[in-house]
Amino acid sequence: MFESAELGHKTDKAEYDAAEPELRAQLLDAQFDLLELKSFAVVVLINGIDGAGKGETVNLLNEWMDPRHIHTLAFDSPTTEEAERPFMWRFWRALPPRGRIGILFGNWYTEPIRERVDKISKKADLDQRLDEINRFEAMLAREGVLLIKLWFHLSKDGQRKRLKALEKDPRTRWRVTEQDWRYYEQYDRYRSVAEHTLRHTSSGDAPWMIVDGTDSCFRELFVARTLLEALRRRLDAVAKHWSPRQTAPPLPPAPDERNLLNSLHLRQPLEKKEYSELLEHYQGRLALLTRDEAFRERSLVLVFEGADAAGKGGAIRRVTAALDARLYHIIPIGAPSEEERAQPYLWRFWRHLPRLGKVEIFDRSWYGRVLVERVEGFCSEADWMRAYSEINDFEDQLARAGVVVVKFWLQIGKDEQLARFKEREAEAHKRFKITTEDWRNRERWDDYARAVCDMVDRTSTETSPWVLVEAENKLFARIKVLRAVCERLEAALRS
Amino acid sequence: MFESAELGHKTDKAEYDAAEPELRAQLLDAQFDLLELKSFAVVVLINGIDGAGKGETVNLLNEWMDPRHIHTLAFDSPTTEEAERPFMWRFWRALPPRGRIGILFGNWYTEPIRERVDKISKKADLDQRLDEINRFEAMLAREGVLLIKLWFHLSKDGQRKRLKALEKDPRTRWRVTEQDWRYYEQYDRYRSVAEHTLRHTSSGDAPWMIVDGTDSCFRELFVARTLLEALRRRLDAVAKHWSPRQTAPPLPPAPDERNLLNSLHLRQPLEKKEYSELLEHYQGRLALLTRDEAFRERSLVLVFEGADAAGKGGAIRRVTAALDARLYHIIPIGAPSEEERAQPYLWRFWRHLPRLGKVEIFDRSWYGRVLVERVEGFCSEADWMRAYSEINDFEDQLARAGVVVVKFWLQIGKDEQLARFKEREAEAHKRFKITTEDWRNRERWDDYARAVCDMVDRTSTETSPWVLVEAENKLFARIKVLRAVCERLEAALRS
Repeated sequence: MFESAELGHKTDKAEYDAAEPELRAQLLDAQFDLLELKSFAVVVLINGIDGAGKGETVNLLNEWMDPRHIHTLAFDSPTTEEAERPFMWRFWRALPPRGRIGILFGNWYTEPIRERVDKISKKADLDQRLDEINRFEAMLAREGVLLIKLWFHLSKDGQRKRLKALEKDPRTRWRVTEQDWRYYEQYDRYRSVAEHTLRHTSSGDAPWMIVDGTDSCFRELFVARTLLEALRRRLDAVAKHWSPRQTAPPLPPAPDERNLLNSLHLRQPLEKKEYSELLEHYQGRLALLTRDEAFRERSLVLVFEGADAAGKGGAIRRVTAALDARLYHIIPIGAPSEEERAQPYLWRFWRHLPRLGKVEIFDRSWYGRVLVERVEGFCSEADWMRAYSEINDFEDQLARAGVVVVKFWLQIGKDEQLARFKEREAEAHKRFKITTEDWRNRERWDDYARAVCDMVDRTSTETSPWVLVEAENKLFARIKVLRAVCERLEAALRS
Repeated sequence: MFESAELGHKTDKAEYDAAEPELRAQLLDAQFDLLELKSFAVVVLINGIDGAGKGETVNLLNEWMDPRHIHTLAFDSPTTEEAERPFMWRFWRALPPRGRIGILFGNWYTEPIRERVDKISKKADLDQRLDEINRFEAMLAREGVLLIKLWFHLSKDGQRKRLKALEKDPRTRWRVTEQDWRYYEQYDRYRSVAEHTLRHTSSGDAPWMIVDGTDSCFRELFVARTLLEALRRRLDAVAKHWSPRQTAPPLPPAPDERNLLNSLHLRQPLEKKEYSELLEHYQGRLALLTRDEAFRERSLVLVFEGADAAGKGGAIRRVTAALDARLYHIIPIGAPSEEERAQPYLWRFWRHLPRLGKVEIFDRSWYGRVLVERVEGFCSEADWMRAYSEINDFEDQLARAGVVVVKFWLQIGKDEQLARFKEREAEAHKRFKITTEDWRNRERWDDYARAVCDMVDRTSTETSPWVLVEAENKLFARIKVLRAVCERLEAALRS
């Protein structure tokens, strides 16, 4: 893997000086085109051996291009806000919007590699994380993000020489720390873990580029040309109406009429009196659970999806009535904002993840991708097809970070929906106005049913199963929701 | 101040039950209108005596209204990210966008009152903070934010009884902590500090509403009606094209032609050779300063403003070339995003404030309010007139939080600008394209000059003075900028 980077590459100063002006002008041009087009974001990952010129390269890129449109981020130990959320939260936070370049110095590779070198993690742990990284990067690529992964390499002898040289010069002495020498001692092990990592994460979408860090002239020209070529190639492709969307095979239609939704008995019995008792019981239980010591190390994400007029709002209110208002937020998901549209699809949900001890309630959610966006054709089939696994990955990460995710689909029949629409119209109460969109969705009833069934099949996992709620009797539905929240939370706090 | 709240108000249950349904419906209606109109945000402050029903009220508001459009925030001890920024940063972060209600439980009053009660601060300190709060709230009011300030009161005896009652009930026992009793011991002192605070911060824009917390029926109706009336009154006013803008007296024209800008000698001598030496010198100095131990407890904000083509970009690049790319960000300020437009004017700048040890460079800035927005009439005269003192308050807060602010105005003459425009057009290089806007700004040359002079006069303060940069010789301008950054930073780190 590192063979080419140990050939002793060298560029002499004269050649460098001759190439530099043109290269800078071209890079700046490409950056400007990127900014004008705003059709994709660029993420540059900076990794590799200490002393191989990572910092110098980052500074160089900021000098050669227009630094106003570059966002450079270095990741040290997580802040409290970061530490209380899933590992990837800080990186999602750092993603540049379309049109801009993000340079991530220290990133999702740093910790997995370091932990394996230090034997904090096992090989299987590393491999699992690399798998996750592959899926994450594939998602970025399909969202149109141009990912450029640079690995800065030095031979063992090269690293020693480099550290010595830095130590000798009074202007750079401060840069060599004891830790650098400690890491140097681990060179062979580091190299082997790195090689493994690189081999498993070099994909067609985002291959690693190995940079020989020995000679600064060579290194600078190499990085600049690599970046320029990647940028230029993508810009040309965009000019030719390139799209990151792949075709996906359509889902097969079910051979009979029977599906998850029409197998439900939508009107379940529950009388007012029993309802009141159960309501008090479960609300009390939920109140206690969220005040439990153990909950301070967990958090809760509730997802409410359902047919129009199925009673999501009412169910949410019965849950929040049991919670201290200081603990929860409700995020109503409508059309994305301008800042959200400039980011990968899941970004707008990542930004709302709760801190420890808090509850975040999504009134509609990331499942919009495989529901309304699928049915209305707002995204391509390939986009919503890949969304299933992206969503599963997302929820897996939440689960592993201690977030309890409970997802509800509230279902009513077509006749019941019509009755509720008419009732709302008759009330003539503006809060419940029925829009033309509601009527239009209704015409797509069967398409939605199909989408819902596929969604449940593909995203009901062991860690975050869907709870299908028979919602024609609102009282029953509310209790079923509350009970599920209590049971899932209780199980999690006990585990 | 608290006399009315100690009269022993009481509402009997029957009266409460009779009033509740209608009140809830009206509140929900008002909230819906707010959401539809999206013309202002509502901020509800919850303060007062422990045990007086603050928490219950917050929960009640979330229950009576649609909690999906309410954002409730409680502020505990600051997170690391919050602690590394000015005191008000966490509250700016929490402001609701137009159309929504933010309930701030614990807010900018909590700490000043507490510190005075605990004698951590002196009376003069408290008064200074109350002045700042008054200015902050006046700014919110003029940005159209509807501010509702609720103070929950109990008499000393009432507080004791309430705490006892909570302790007696097994369901609420957990809520009474040792700290509550310790605070109770301080009742008289707390009351006196609170009275002083309330008296000094009850303004026409945002008066305090004292809530007698003794009887829950009374309290709930009182709060709900207070909120409803405030909401309804503002909604009605908006329907009648209400605007928070006040008229402000126009600035007097200068009696002669002499001004700050035309008194500058715009073309200052500096030869290439001397420039190179000075550049190396100051860049080296700046590099050392930002690596200084002392800088880890400070941060740096640079503001670049100037005439079109005055060379802001070039000057910025000479600064960033001296910095480690991991330390700084450049924020180019253009038109605000949708999320930014839904917030008070300064919100978009608060969100970019640097953490400790970091540098944030604004390429154009909050001064747009008193420059382009003033000249182009994008905001009313009253808006840009009040902006001067709002900006001074903002920069004061930065200074007190240890942020070093250095502001540059780069000036060139009208002829020089024309020459640069033509040069750029001749280069035909798209990165430097001259837009129709540039030509239009040029026609407004005198208006801009007037605006710049007013800006410097009104916002050049001891803590953050303007540096006027004669920029016709770019070499001179860049050195002047670098030198000023070094000197200001050096002075700050030594102090």
